Amino acid sequence: MTDTPDTYILAVNCGSSSLKFCLYRSAPIQIEFSGAVSTIGADNSRLEIKDSAFNILENRVAHFKDMDAAANVIIDWLKNRQHRYQLVAIGHRIVQGGPEHRQPKKITDELLQTLHRYIYLAPNHLPDEIKVIRAFQSAYPDTAQIACFDTSFHRDMPSYVQNYPLPAEYKDKGLMKYGFHGISYQYIMQKLADEYSALAAQKIIIAHLGNGASMAAVINGSSFDTTMGMSPMGGLVMGTRSGDLDPGVLLYLLNQYQLSPTELDDLLSNHSGLKAIAGVSDMQELLDMEPDDIRAKEALTTFCYSAKKFIGMLAAAMGGLDILVFTGGIGENSSVIRDRICRDLDFIGIDIDKEKNLENDPLISKQTSRVSVRVIKTNEELMIANLVAGVLDRAVKN
Amino acid sequence: MTDTPDTYILAVNCGSSSLKFCLYRSAPIQIEFSGAVSTIGADNSRLEIKDSAFNILENRVAHFKDMDAAANVIIDWLKNRQHRYQLVAIGHRIVQGGPEHRQPKKITDELLQTLHRYIYLAPNHLPDEIKVIRAFQSAYPDTAQIACFDTSFHRDMPSYVQNYPLPAEYKDKGLMKYGFHGISYQYIMQKLADEYSALAAQKIIIAHLGNGASMAAVINGSSFDTTMGMSPMGGLVMGTRSGDLDPGVLLYLLNQYQLSPTELDDLLSNHSGLKAIAGVSDMQELLDMEPDDIRAKEALTTFCYSAKKFIGMLAAAMGGLDILVFTGGIGENSSVIRDRICRDLDFIGIDIDKEKNLENDPLISKQTSRVSVRVIKTNEELMIANLVAGVLDRAVKN
Repeated sequence: MTDTPDTYILAVNCGSSSLKFCLYRSAPIQIEFSGAVSTIGADNSRLEIKDSAFNILENRVAHFKDMDAAANVIIDWLKNRQHRYQLVAIGHRIVQGGPEHRQPKKITDELLQTLHRYIYLAPNHLPDEIKVIRAFQSAYPDTAQIACFDTSFHRDMPSYVQNYPLPAEYKDKGLMKYGFHGISYQYIMQKLADEYSALAAQKIIIAHLGNGASMAAVINGSSFDTTMGMSPMGGLVMGTRSGDLDPGVLLYLLNQYQLSPTELDDLLSNHSGLKAIAGVSDMQELLDMEPDDIRAKEALTTFCYSAKKFIGMLAAAMGGLDILVFTGGIGENSSVIRDRICRDLDFIGIDIDKEKNLENDPLISKQTSRVSVRVIKTNEELMIANLVAGVLDRAVKN
Repeated sequence: MTDTPDTYILAVNCGSSSLKFCLYRSAPIQIEFSGAVSTIGADNSRLEIKDSAFNILENRVAHFKDMDAAANVIIDWLKNRQHRYQLVAIGHRIVQGGPEHRQPKKITDELLQTLHRYIYLAPNHLPDEIKVIRAFQSAYPDTAQIACFDTSFHRDMPSYVQNYPLPAEYKDKGLMKYGFHGISYQYIMQKLADEYSALAAQKIIIAHLGNGASMAAVINGSSFDTTMGMSPMGGLVMGTRSGDLDPGVLLYLLNQYQLSPTELDDLLSNHSGLKAIAGVSDMQELLDMEPDDIRAKEALTTFCYSAKKFIGMLAAAMGGLDILVFTGGIGENSSVIRDRICRDLDFIGIDIDKEKNLENDPLISKQTSRVSVRVIKTNEELMIANLVAGVLDRAVKN
């Protein structure tokens, strides 16, 4: 009997100005390296790579001018080590899977064409994601590449949730509520399933709070409703995005300021939300500013109020709430924000233990709290690796 | 001592395709006549006038081609009876009072100029309302005319509720959450005050559900938040309006269909909501169609789901709920809709008595229900008359 060499799965997560990757040993899945190119396009964009013990293997600033440059520096780094890491598959987070994709899917020419067709549904994200796929395809022509869709998790929401109250002709062309952060939600549901024997019976809200922020209402393990809509601009007030708006606001901006659709998109994607209120979108920075800055205080109040309202909204949508999970950069790390969001929600059964919350305890509600409130660190790359492993398993069995 | 002749207050309520009026004897206020020109602009537009005992005094179809024609037919009718009805004041419902107006105000040239300046804030409504004011000013040059603003009730909402998370430059030009249906909300609050001794301590949601629909969260007698925004298109899914949307939806419509702002406004004001789902916007018609029409069923589900979610949202905004009031055409009359909206909201303390609800009882919650659920018929014209009487009283005292 000969040793079979270890095989590896690469998870690639393309954000709006970052490209993250994690290399996992497969079977069982175990992290080997993780890295990211951040603030792509800026002069101080940076490549950082760590091993599984968080030792820094690379940390250099360079002007990575676009997503292609970012993909190529990661590919070069991996190629230099490919004699040690035999990739069996590369998984990509894809923001928009359109109305049909409920499962991760092997990237074929046909799927790439489909993704090209979906660009109109996610014009701010899909083009870069396709570029990254193509870069990895060129570098690894014989390695399976798997698309993992951020929208898949929400594809079984009821029709009256997915459909906008707009004429059917638009829906036929793809106008519907897709919802996002699905890979993160799937990861959280896996973690919850490890702890709860009867998860199916639970009414769950997962609050993924980061620079982009959304919530999902989950019943029977399946997304029932979510705050983001057709695009990731909807729902909660976010770092630089407005969240849901009265359509009259956009009409006003179009009529009064003659903004073009592109300018309006830029305004509502990049210059709204906390940044518009306080000039800063970073939560920790806002918390540091708060004691001396009335605008920072207002931005934080606005964010927590928005989150609180959507918790009430999603709880009403499900007819109750059993578990509330905080995740994402803000949800995992900011006890102050969690505390403010949960304040005065005892009428729906949320009762936070201040001490546990301060310590970022996994369970931050009191024993007597009707709703169990949890903090779970999300891991989209690990979920991508799990999804990819699932696809490979099924391929072997078929 | 000679008899002073009775004096009268006229309340005028200009809608998007109707002009309603009520004539009240003043001190104490008591109805004399009520009437309306409906479906203005249509071939079958109609003038109907009733006395206080609901005897029909006028009921004729004619082509009242626009708001001026409607105002003039009402003025003619009144003028023919003016020897009997001495008008001391005319009150007008004005949809948009801008950021400042917290109280009804005597209409002067200056106020009219201000209203003209506000047209950009309510382009679909203010022009007609100004026309109606001018028609009554010409006919009654010596009679005080009072503007009662639908936005006044919401002017003390907290700053983080009134302000959108958009750059301050837009707010400085008037972009903020105004909220509407304020005259109706004020009326409901008066009626509630008659029944509750300690209303100030109560957390109240008033659901004004008609073809246009909104909800207000009221604490200490004052609006704390409301579902409509800068325009009456926001918030709940309505008869022909979409309600709040992910801004990405509008950007998609602008980019993909090259809709002009005017076409987009028309789409989201007149061809969305229940009408887009089922082809019909009238609630009773939808209920009649429901058994045999899957689209009518879907429209009703969408409406009730939207209302249920906003009740949860506003309750969370206030940190609880003590009183829920249904009003407006649908809220007052449709027990089925009320029942569906309230279903599964027992987790926030709403428990409907099915029998009482069927009978449109003023109190439709069970005795054991933590939240008191009420049905109150709104009366905007009576509220306008009350507001006008208040202005006259203050003028006398000053």
